[in-house]
Amino acid sequence: MQLSKRLAAELFGTFWLVLGGCGSAVLAANFAGPVHGLGIGFVGVSLAFGLTVLTMAFAIGHISGCHLNPAVSVGLTVAGRFPARDLLPYIVAQVAGAVLGAAVLALIASGKPGFDLVASGFASNGYGDRSPGHYSLVAAFACEAVMTGFFLFVILGATDKRAPAGFAPIAIGLCLTLIHLVSIPVTNTSVNPARSTGPALFVGGAAVDQLWLFWIAPIIGAVVAGLVYPLIAESRGGNAQKLALD
Amino acid sequence: MQLSKRLAAELFGTFWLVLGGCGSAVLAANFAGPVHGLGIGFVGVSLAFGLTVLTMAFAIGHISGCHLNPAVSVGLTVAGRFPARDLLPYIVAQVAGAVLGAAVLALIASGKPGFDLVASGFASNGYGDRSPGHYSLVAAFACEAVMTGFFLFVILGATDKRAPAGFAPIAIGLCLTLIHLVSIPVTNTSVNPARSTGPALFVGGAAVDQLWLFWIAPIIGAVVAGLVYPLIAESRGGNAQKLALD
Amino acid sequence: MQLSKRLAAELFGTFWLVLGGCGSAVLAANFAGPVHGLGIGFVGVSLAFGLTVLTMAFAIGHISGCHLNPAVSVGLTVAGRFPARDLLPYIVAQVAGAVLGAAVLALIASGKPGFDLVASGFASNGYGDRSPGHYSLVAAFACEAVMTGFFLFVILGATDKRAPAGFAPIAIGLCLTLIHLVSIPVTNTSVNPARSTGPALFVGGAAVDQLWLFWIAPIIGAVVAGLVYPLIAESRGGNAQKLALD
Amino acid sequence: MQLSKRLAAELFGTFWLVLGGCGSAVLAANFAGPVHGLGIGFVGVSLAFGLTVLTMAFAIGHISGCHLNPAVSVGLTVAGRFPARDLLPYIVAQVAGAVLGAAVLALIASGKPGFDLVASGFASNGYGDRSPGHYSLVAAFACEAVMTGFFLFVILGATDKRAPAGFAPIAIGLCLTLIHLVSIPVTNTSVNPARSTGPALFVGGAAVDQLWLFWIAPIIGAVVAGLVYPLIAESRGGNAQKLALD
Repeated sequence: MQLSKRLAAELFGTFWLVLGGCGSAVLAANFAGPVHGLGIGFVGVSLAFGLTVLTMAFAIGHISGCHLNPAVSVGLTVAGRFPARDLLPYIVAQVAGAVLGAAVLALIASGKPGFDLVASGFASNGYGDRSPGHYSLVAAFACEAVMTGFFLFVILGATDKRAPAGFAPIAIGLCLTLIHLVSIPVTNTSVNPARSTGPALFVGGAAVDQLWLFWIAPIIGAVVAGLVYPLIAESRGGNAQKLALD
Repeated sequence: MQLSKRLAAELFGTFWLVLGGCGSAVLAANFAGPVHGLGIGFVGVSLAFGLTVLTMAFAIGHISGCHLNPAVSVGLTVAGRFPARDLLPYIVAQVAGAVLGAAVLALIASGKPGFDLVASGFASNGYGDRSPGHYSLVAAFACEAVMTGFFLFVILGATDKRAPAGFAPIAIGLCLTLIHLVSIPVTNTSVNPARSTGPALFVGGAAVDQLWLFWIAPIIGAVVAGLVYPLIAESRGGNAQKLALD
Repeated sequence: MQLSKRLAAELFGTFWLVLGGCGSAVLAANFAGPVHGLGIGFVGVSLAFGLTVLTMAFAIGHISGCHLNPAVSVGLTVAGRFPARDLLPYIVAQVAGAVLGAAVLALIASGKPGFDLVASGFASNGYGDRSPGHYSLVAAFACEAVMTGFFLFVILGATDKRAPAGFAPIAIGLCLTLIHLVSIPVTNTSVNPARSTGPALFVGGAAVDQLWLFWIAPIIGAVVAGLVYPLIAESRGGNAQKLALD
Repeated sequence: MQLSKRLAAELFGTFWLVLGGCGSAVLAANFAGPVHGLGIGFVGVSLAFGLTVLTMAFAIGHISGCHLNPAVSVGLTVAGRFPARDLLPYIVAQVAGAVLGAAVLALIASGKPGFDLVASGFASNGYGDRSPGHYSLVAAFACEAVMTGFFLFVILGATDKRAPAGFAPIAIGLCLTLIHLVSIPVTNTSVNPARSTGPALFVGGAAVDQLWLFWIAPIIGAVVAGLVYPLIAESRGGNAQKLALD
């Protein structure tokens, strides 16, 4: 598959991740209708994020591998499953998709009378007083690093050639749902630097100031997982030669 | 498979989509029992719509392809996966099924003392003051077009012969769940002209006046996806000759 | 497989359906803790019922076919997929399992101080003033018949040999979830005479008086589906000779 | 696969089960934001526990079998599917993983101003006045034994070589979700002695005093299921020779 087509797939996929995941948070989580409890809450947002990945992994897994996430691309590279030469183009496509997804979400969201993008938070990630539960920087960093580490561990395991074929999109998508069920109160859940960057650019100010954590912590977690999984699984050596996406 | 049997399957399937999806919204979303929070809310309605498609795709996918949606049939035709000569019969069967599903739902719903079909909205779609969150016409149009576009993109990708076999009903059904998790507040979520038409005919008035948007916007999104997916996936040319439903 | 082992599997499976499905409703739906909204509501109960069938279909599908429901056994018989000579033993095993499941649930539930089994309703089914939303007898009958009909339609389609192999437990289990998402407010959802009988025997009185509807309506729906599916799917004739469970 | 690698996989997996499952309960179940109903409640916690097992079963099933639970290892040994010589090392790895997972959860949770680990309960299990619904010791014991018994029954059935290949992680993970949907109000749901031990060691006092029940009851249930399943399924004899994990 040509690189340009793989990059287009990553861009569309990350667009969908931000539009669907952040969209559910911005448009539907707090919905206050005539009756209490109609809004989807954190359960619905968790489901939505996971389903963006599940659906795209079935739709474009055979085109680009469906990373949709710079930390995933880095972790797969460290584990010997993705060629380093494609890393930068993938990350650029992912960030571009995330920004475009946030732009379309801003267009739709501002169709509601009285919507205030900055005051809403626009599903941006944060720590300290920008954390939903006011979690500290240390807790936020630990949470993002550990959650991304396990995310990569599950990705590497579920795409191992000894795992049952075809099920990886379910395992990976629902792993992202699980991660959100745990960690939305801590950081609004990133585990994905591109997903964090899209909304933050629209909110500006402190959202951008805190963006560094949502690049560094997830990538550290991903690198550790990329080193650890092969040690446990014995899938280094010969297997690593055969890249998952070729 | 004879066309008459495929049409019967589409009619039954779209009946189920409206009875199950709109039924969950009309009967159970707002349920007010002795304790708050028993009703299924938008999360439950999102799950219900997705599961109507997931269940029917396993049940009749091998008969009719399980489109249940004029926008899906149009998008597949544009992508070269569905014969144009079957398009009109499919759409007629889908709309007929949706109207019949809405009729049975009206029968059941009116068994509750004090039920007022028109005042309830009957799960019809709308924009402006008929949008749950009072979203503007522009936001509603953009949302329906973009959501349907990605729905078709996922359908085309998940049924690509390089995608894992057998999983498409899960990907497609849960994609519809995801779309509802995001967009119920905007338009009550259509992405399906047949689903919009069924309830609107029973509500009448403004619901019918706004129906045009829920035919045009989803079909535009579907056409765009039907043109774009093959460009990214290289599945045009030889593959397009072999229609998915033959 | 010997009949005695298949009957044991049906008994265990229907025990699990009642303990898990009705158990979630009795123990967890209304849970009132320090914070509102902890209880699982109708969404959680819907998920629980569906997962009892999904889990058992993977666990005992290869032993007994995992009907767990007299209406399912009748519908499969009508469609030529189940031998009539096994119908009565299956139904007896299913009802016995349901009663035992309700007995264990009563034991657990009464471990809570102040629990009043009869006043709680004990997840029994009902219409009129025993319907959660006070739906009429006609609405309740129509709802149970139509829902069971589509349930059987999905079962017959998802186990058709042209449907993707291995996925039927997912389709069938999540179909039961969908049916509950729609119809708990109407009848507390039966679509299964055995499931209705178990709790009703413990509640007594009006719950038993109304039990007839939850035998007749589901079975009518199942018979209709058992006649209609083969007409649409062309799976009658030669295929019907080969019984699904042999 | 070497034992040391299988033990590392069990340790990581049980770490994830406690961090993800108990983490969702501690961090997100009761979340009180600007709007009521954002917290994930018991439905979200049920989903999270199930998804820890589903994701890890796809990720490490091919390495260690993904037990993550001493009761599961015991039940599989009784059923002749797991070698008795590996039982103790597996249990030690599982408990170690659970304690480490609880430690990381304590680190993250204490990043929230005002968090009081002991007062929160820290997702520990309990009966009597430590049960969420104040269920008696007898009810708690019966519930844990019966639920674990059916959990093992589903595990043994879904991994039977006649069950559809590859789906076991879905069946087993969602079975754990189902068990939580029913029994969180009774004991906060254990069915797993390792999962109970991790948080209890951090809470101390009565949580540790009650820990015996969450070792004995689940193991009794698992032993019974390990004896019963082979009787029903005829998978004893020759098949038992071939251990599932070899």
